[in-house]
Amino acid sequence: MKARVSIRLKSAILDPQGKTVQQALQQMGYSDVSSVRIGKLVELEVGGNDPIEVRTKVEEFSRKLLTNPLMETFEIELVRDVV
Amino acid sequence: MKARVSIRLKSAILDPQGKTVQQALQQMGYSDVSSVRIGKLVELEVGGNDPIEVRTKVEEFSRKLLTNPLMETFEIELVRDVV
Repeated sequence: MKARVSIRLKSAILDPQGKTVQQALQQMGYSDVSSVRIGKLVELEVGGNDPIEVRTKVEEFSRKLLTNPLMETFEIELVRDVV
Repeated sequence: MKARVSIRLKSAILDPQGKTVQQALQQMGYSDVSSVRIGKLVELEVGGNDPIEVRTKVEEFSRKLLTNPLMETFEIELVRDVV
């Protein structure tokens, strides 16, 4: 089963990379872009067919390895394989 | 309007960061994670209410600034503000 983990900085955390991109966009003339936040997108292929079991596993290792729970939040989407 | 740009490495491009995460997961006992690809998630607030116009603009600066078209593909989702 394919799993997609979207990782975002918590809203209270400053995002200097996003700020830099926003400034670059403004210099290019895109003056109405008012907020840019940059996160990560981790896509994995995980064994197992039970969505609840797979989601639990992905949640577990997202917390342990993929994210920093102090600074980031994450969201999991599962994509079932087409049979 | 909120725009979300999901940026992924093209499938032909090696992803050493993803490979490293996969190996770390295997060492932690998640042996059935078979493929890990790491991309970027850029979320922006863009002025304008016409979805076609906003999408065209986001597509334009995604190609010019946010992505490397030789190595990456991107996908745009628009989220309308709740009025």
